[in-house]
Amino acid sequence: MAVSEKLNLTMLCDFYELTMGNGYFERGYKDRICYFDVFFRQCPDGGGFAIAAGLEQIVRYIRDLHFDPEDIEYLRGRNLFCEEFLQYLANFRFTGDIWAVPEGTPIFPKEPIITVRAPAIEAQLIETFLLLSINHQSLIATKANRVVRAAEGRTVLEFGSRRAQGADAAILGARAAYIGGCNGTACTISDQLYGVHAGGTMAHAWVQMFDSEYEAFKAYCEIYPTNAVLLVDTYNTLHSGVPNAIKAFNEVLKPMGITKCGIRLDSGDMAYLTQQARKMLDEAGWTECQISVSNSLDEYIIQDLLRQGAKIDMFGVGERLITARSEPVFGGVYKLAAVEDADGNIQPKIKISENVGKITNPHFKKLYRFYGNDTGKAIADYLCVHDEVVDDSKDLTIFDPDATWKTKTVYNYTARELQVPIFKNGELVYSLPSLQEIKAYCTKEVDALWDEVKRFDNPHTYYVDLSQKLWDIKYDLLKHHR
Amino acid sequence: MAVSEKLNLTMLCDFYELTMGNGYFERGYKDRICYFDVFFRQCPDGGGFAIAAGLEQIVRYIRDLHFDPEDIEYLRGRNLFCEEFLQYLANFRFTGDIWAVPEGTPIFPKEPIITVRAPAIEAQLIETFLLLSINHQSLIATKANRVVRAAEGRTVLEFGSRRAQGADAAILGARAAYIGGCNGTACTISDQLYGVHAGGTMAHAWVQMFDSEYEAFKAYCEIYPTNAVLLVDTYNTLHSGVPNAIKAFNEVLKPMGITKCGIRLDSGDMAYLTQQARKMLDEAGWTECQISVSNSLDEYIIQDLLRQGAKIDMFGVGERLITARSEPVFGGVYKLAAVEDADGNIQPKIKISENVGKITNPHFKKLYRFYGNDTGKAIADYLCVHDEVVDDSKDLTIFDPDATWKTKTVYNYTARELQVPIFKNGELVYSLPSLQEIKAYCTKEVDALWDEVKRFDNPHTYYVDLSQKLWDIKYDLLKHHR
Repeated sequence: MAVSEKLNLTMLCDFYELTMGNGYFERGYKDRICYFDVFFRQCPDGGGFAIAAGLEQIVRYIRDLHFDPEDIEYLRGRNLFCEEFLQYLANFRFTGDIWAVPEGTPIFPKEPIITVRAPAIEAQLIETFLLLSINHQSLIATKANRVVRAAEGRTVLEFGSRRAQGADAAILGARAAYIGGCNGTACTISDQLYGVHAGGTMAHAWVQMFDSEYEAFKAYCEIYPTNAVLLVDTYNTLHSGVPNAIKAFNEVLKPMGITKCGIRLDSGDMAYLTQQARKMLDEAGWTECQISVSNSLDEYIIQDLLRQGAKIDMFGVGERLITARSEPVFGGVYKLAAVEDADGNIQPKIKISENVGKITNPHFKKLYRFYGNDTGKAIADYLCVHDEVVDDSKDLTIFDPDATWKTKTVYNYTARELQVPIFKNGELVYSLPSLQEIKAYCTKEVDALWDEVKRFDNPHTYYVDLSQKLWDIKYDLLKHHR
Repeated sequence: MAVSEKLNLTMLCDFYELTMGNGYFERGYKDRICYFDVFFRQCPDGGGFAIAAGLEQIVRYIRDLHFDPEDIEYLRGRNLFCEEFLQYLANFRFTGDIWAVPEGTPIFPKEPIITVRAPAIEAQLIETFLLLSINHQSLIATKANRVVRAAEGRTVLEFGSRRAQGADAAILGARAAYIGGCNGTACTISDQLYGVHAGGTMAHAWVQMFDSEYEAFKAYCEIYPTNAVLLVDTYNTLHSGVPNAIKAFNEVLKPMGITKCGIRLDSGDMAYLTQQARKMLDEAGWTECQISVSNSLDEYIIQDLLRQGAKIDMFGVGERLITARSEPVFGGVYKLAAVEDADGNIQPKIKISENVGKITNPHFKKLYRFYGNDTGKAIADYLCVHDEVVDDSKDLTIFDPDATWKTKTVYNYTARELQVPIFKNGELVYSLPSLQEIKAYCTKEVDALWDEVKRFDNPHTYYVDLSQKLWDIKYDLLKHHR
């Protein structure tokens, strides 16, 4: 029932997908089987990895893919498309195959996160939504994972709905943030739809609504004695907010035997204020009172606050998480990797660029992750042609595709294929995991990365190597086009 | 039929709006009339003004505001809300008043863009969606306006759907970009729903699908002779792309007498490549062939390219526009400004902060813009108490609220109230303008700003002054709380 589940988003495509589709149709290419990869080129914020997210919404989109009569009417009115093509669209559904890396998987540049095998028009039409969904949710899951790692085990809540870039960004952003490691959200509908626990207590307006701050606090404690988190910065945090909170706790909670409560700070110097507030609360006997802070937080500010001895139990992270403010674009692209000829032979395709980093990896591929059997840690990823099989009972020498003299032999390892089948001939063949499962899987897989890869700045570059066979095919294509 | 029009987004609220609502209900404050303002504190990107957008989606949200039985069920399951409150929510609708600045209006920090007068629970519940809609669309409209001004009259198209932060961000982002001045979008559904003209021709995949670049271009020209914009950078822009495009134009378009066509570049050095391409096209007689570019553009890159003599007729602006990458957060807030007592007297409220810039302007207010009668230009905005009336037949001395000794006397001017009534007692009293009208109004109102205010960096700070009466009320409240 989320935005993208209720609404038919088939028309959320770039217009060129329709003009190309009509062109393929007119040229008899409509049934030509194509292979497209979704991949990205750079981790956001200079990080060492990203977190894949957004697949569930793609599954729902693909299943719902169809043109309504009013869509066909609109397209006819554009006077660009032949009538036979419009008829074809009226009966359109997705009939192809899709493989994808499960949500929550750490992913690296140039890896196929999704691979589509489908007739040309179908494969082309889904480009925009696939990218949009992966780009948005992977962006937020990746950012959330950084923020959560900075908080070193403390609770992190997503608080950003009001600054999100639209309703979807709020609702699905909370979902992605949860995958990346957040403990909950302020966004009610994300709880209702996805089970991302939603919480929250009061805004400044609550405090202003009463004749005094103390009365506002007392009323809140009386109504929600087991959930009393008081916002203490409406007038003056240390001179009025914290003393009034303590007074309300003493007055209302103490007689009830309640020791768990909280205060929240939303402005001012968090390092100083939380240390002072902690002292005041402890001296008053409220040692179990938790201190939450919010106010333009991100992973760097959280790291700094903790380094400066701030006394914080919970971080509410808003605009800088929900928009991934420091790097709000996840640059996933959708590139043709191969086409099948009339006999079903796969012909690899390449996109060349002046910029070497923008040259694509051709062909229908397979993606492995190698884990050391002794450490459980991820050693390298390995990209090969679809019909290659890695025998992980044998040592394997791999090489850096950009510096082929750099080799590494992996041994005593387990090879795991990262992509799993999602659709086969248009039918869903994947059982969607629950959000809790995705989150737990993400935590486990991030734990399997070495700390060097997880540094916020200048992380170690994780190996994503090509098989000799794939590298040779790429090299031949490059020579052919030069 | 856009995302936020089809879907009931009542549950897209911060959870604290519900806990506070239940608290107001239990304390008998549910019918207490409150006044809230939506305003922002700083223009994005250090600019001199912003463009208001997002009101239409708020209108639809308010009209559709209601809780479905499954929403009540969900809330009951949280075990926080009293049964009477849940009954109240089951019959909930918005019964208050809303005033707003029309979409497309240039707006300045601290001005009430929207003012809500409603019973406490209603006013509180709509906080998140109002902010989200205004923050998102104003952000994109403001960014688009900067990009369009940098392009100095050349066509600017919004190309960013695939990098947008969710479906709404793509669909409504295209709408907001159009309000801000873009000429169209690549997003098909934004055309269908809002009439933002959608266009587009081919991706690299089209070129790769054919045996050669020339065949791909020729086929495209044959299918779309009057709309032939060829993407020339799949292999090598100057050595293969442009020559093949010229060959296809000569072969297909020339015999048909067609002189209008185009090429698009999506990579490489745009200044050099477009100058060379222009020369080649002109020498081949294709002087009417338009050159489009796309590839991580923004207002600064566009300014630079034009300064360097790039030959560009059309800019396709993607990720940096649709996410407002350089500053992806529009910091609109929603603050209590007043409450009515039992006798209907309006009591002004203030939110104090250590940070002077975060102190709110109290009371139910009115916002004027003064235009010089001789120049037609906007001179200053003027914020006063709701019952004050400016007589623009008389001179008026205004003063800077942060530096009260700085005064200015305005004369020979016309005062226009910026906010208009949108809802009265829950009923829509505003006739929504068409998107074309909003765009035209925006252009006109931006033209009414002095160039000094429109500089990208270090613009002149436009006057937003307070009336003496409002200033006195604010000062008294500050003294009272100190």
